[in-house]
Amino acid sequence: MANPSLLILPGDGIGPEVMAEVKKIIDWYGDKRGLRFDVSEDLVGGAAYDAHGTPLADATMAKAQEVDAVLLGAVGGPKYDKLDFSVKPERGLLRLRKEMDLFSNLRPAQCFDALADFSSLKKEVVAGLDIMIVRELTSGVYFGEPRGIFTEGNERVGINTQRYTESEIARVARSAFELARRRGNKVCSMEKANVMESGILWREVVQKVHDEEYPDVELSHMYADAGAMQLCRWPKQFDVIVTDNLFGDLLSDAAAMLTGSLGMLPSASLGAPMANGRPKALYEPVHGSAPDIAGQGKANPIACILSFAMALRYSFDQGAEADRLEKAVEKVLADGVRTADLMGPEGGKPVSTAEMGNAVVAAL
Amino acid sequence: MANPSLLILPGDGIGPEVMAEVKKIIDWYGDKRGLRFDVSEDLVGGAAYDAHGTPLADATMAKAQEVDAVLLGAVGGPKYDKLDFSVKPERGLLRLRKEMDLFSNLRPAQCFDALADFSSLKKEVVAGLDIMIVRELTSGVYFGEPRGIFTEGNERVGINTQRYTESEIARVARSAFELARRRGNKVCSMEKANVMESGILWREVVQKVHDEEYPDVELSHMYADAGAMQLCRWPKQFDVIVTDNLFGDLLSDAAAMLTGSLGMLPSASLGAPMANGRPKALYEPVHGSAPDIAGQGKANPIACILSFAMALRYSFDQGAEADRLEKAVEKVLADGVRTADLMGPEGGKPVSTAEMGNAVVAAL
Ligand SMILES: CC(C)[C@H](C(=O)O)[C@@H](O)C(=O)O
Ligand SMILES: CC(C)[C@H](C(=O)O)[C@@H](O)C(=O)O
Repeated sequence: MANPSLLILPGDGIGPEVMAEVKKIIDWYGDKRGLRFDVSEDLVGGAAYDAHGTPLADATMAKAQEVDAVLLGAVGGPKYDKLDFSVKPERGLLRLRKEMDLFSNLRPAQCFDALADFSSLKKEVVAGLDIMIVRELTSGVYFGEPRGIFTEGNERVGINTQRYTESEIARVARSAFELARRRGNKVCSMEKANVMESGILWREVVQKVHDEEYPDVELSHMYADAGAMQLCRWPKQFDVIVTDNLFGDLLSDAAAMLTGSLGMLPSASLGAPMANGRPKALYEPVHGSAPDIAGQGKANPIACILSFAMALRYSFDQGAEADRLEKAVEKVLADGVRTADLMGPEGGKPVSTAEMGNAVVAAL
Repeated sequence: MANPSLLILPGDGIGPEVMAEVKKIIDWYGDKRGLRFDVSEDLVGGAAYDAHGTPLADATMAKAQEVDAVLLGAVGGPKYDKLDFSVKPERGLLRLRKEMDLFSNLRPAQCFDALADFSSLKKEVVAGLDIMIVRELTSGVYFGEPRGIFTEGNERVGINTQRYTESEIARVARSAFELARRRGNKVCSMEKANVMESGILWREVVQKVHDEEYPDVELSHMYADAGAMQLCRWPKQFDVIVTDNLFGDLLSDAAAMLTGSLGMLPSASLGAPMANGRPKALYEPVHGSAPDIAGQGKANPIACILSFAMALRYSFDQGAEADRLEKAVEKVLADGVRTADLMGPEGGKPVSTAEMGNAVVAAL
């Protein structure tokens, strides 16, 4: 049987640096565990724009459609700020999400024991925190039409459209309920049904999928503003949160920051199963391209490494190997190995991106 | 000269209880400081629905347009959850905001010294925090058309429209820059210009208003997801934040919760100047109707009392009297007077809503 295939898209900023460490991990799995991947690499974001005048070349898009999983670093940077909207680095990422139909974005917000002190929240509020935000990723205001800047009378108006169909809501709800069954069996759905009709439909469909298919899972609903509050107040009340594309963008970023482990958090974006049974999938760290520290060997590669662990688990059915990799990361942290972003006020000497990658390989 | 007029709309849940304490304060100002108001009272939200079958009667709307300022308690409650969208309690509040054209919603997120320990954030992160979120309140996805639940093919689709005109953006930006000049002279504008065209227009117009009219104020731009993160990480980096209706809803709630002083936070919603020079204005606490504790005398009236202080400052040019009221509240807190929501884990005996109101009057 052919090896499973991986497309690596390092992207911009710290993307290439952190991805270099993931490649070491991939090599280790090939050498030591006989888990070999056919790895190819290509450009996305500003890097693709520089080479091809587009943030995602058609050939790259076609490759992404064929492989078993895509690993992405990060996109964007101030160099591209003045580009036209249609060719901004972000458009490359959004095109991948949309054309691969990756509707379910899994964003764990987890607090690593060794880093609990590092949160801006009190230790007791975050220690042991482990929630999963499931964000709808292919619809809503990110993609709805009409959109654009139009002229009306003697002034311009900026328009975007929030749009959700019943089936779009139902499929991401299923994905959240499935996950909940393998975790704490609790889902909280967030919208603004008190002011938005799209939120009313969201709430109704999530409730219906629950009642008909997942009555065993505990379901609650919360307005997204109250959800933002409760995440800040007592995040441990949640297990799985399911929400739309835009609310998910804000809420998952807030939750990630609360853990104090932002440089540590991976994500998986999953679509429908392909012919071989594997879901279409893209894995990427939650953090961005961090242009301010790019190229300096300061970036923390762990979020990207843990994104590969998610790939092992969700794309390649290698849950035990994913556990092994996650444990290796925990060990390295417990040993006090820290990149610059993980240095507390007490100081100490941070390791480089490469040293952190090597430490994880050694711990494996 | 006629006394300035106040319309009191206690609303639902704890609204009437907290408003009862504000009335004591209003009486004190009349008796002791010769500051007399013509006070009338009416229904809004579920209370108005129960009486008139609508969450805001036309006669109440007309009165609100005529008075110098409206004071609102809170709206909503589980009793009204099953009502049709068009008559939900929230629609009463939204109608007031829209028809009075209250485009600038001022939401201070302030950490009271006596309560710094009460935040889920570490004390050093929140102590002394004092930021002002200026939320656009009459446009965006809250009011944009088309909106509704439609049938397309064989399924339903929920649609809302985010819409901002240049002049809508410019006027709320001006309001933020004006405020900044009287505070820390710094404005951070938040949108998602990387994915939404309405965000691109927002950023461009805020920048233009700045360059042409407020070049002396320091202006920065941040994506709203990064903004949510930064509010959680180090909120003291901000002075004034200006953002749209929906982002403002989430971000201001998160910020309010971070302060640990949710039951303490007031808000002002301001429109254009009326013939007498006063702005159209509505004042309300940031907290909701808290149906779980309604009618038990447990609610904290301070947010509503401080909303009246904002009315003194922004509607009645009584900055010194507003300071007096705010100082009275600080004194009461410093004296250790606490409603149930302000009890730390160390316990103690909470005072009732009325006792807290009386304590503030005594401190005046
Ligand atoms: C880079 C940007 C387009 C993206 C988004 O808004 O979805 C990012 O913030 C994210 O959360 O993955
Ligand atoms: C009650 C509700 C309609 C309202 C809103 O969404 O604006 C509330 O959350 C607020 O922030 O004032």
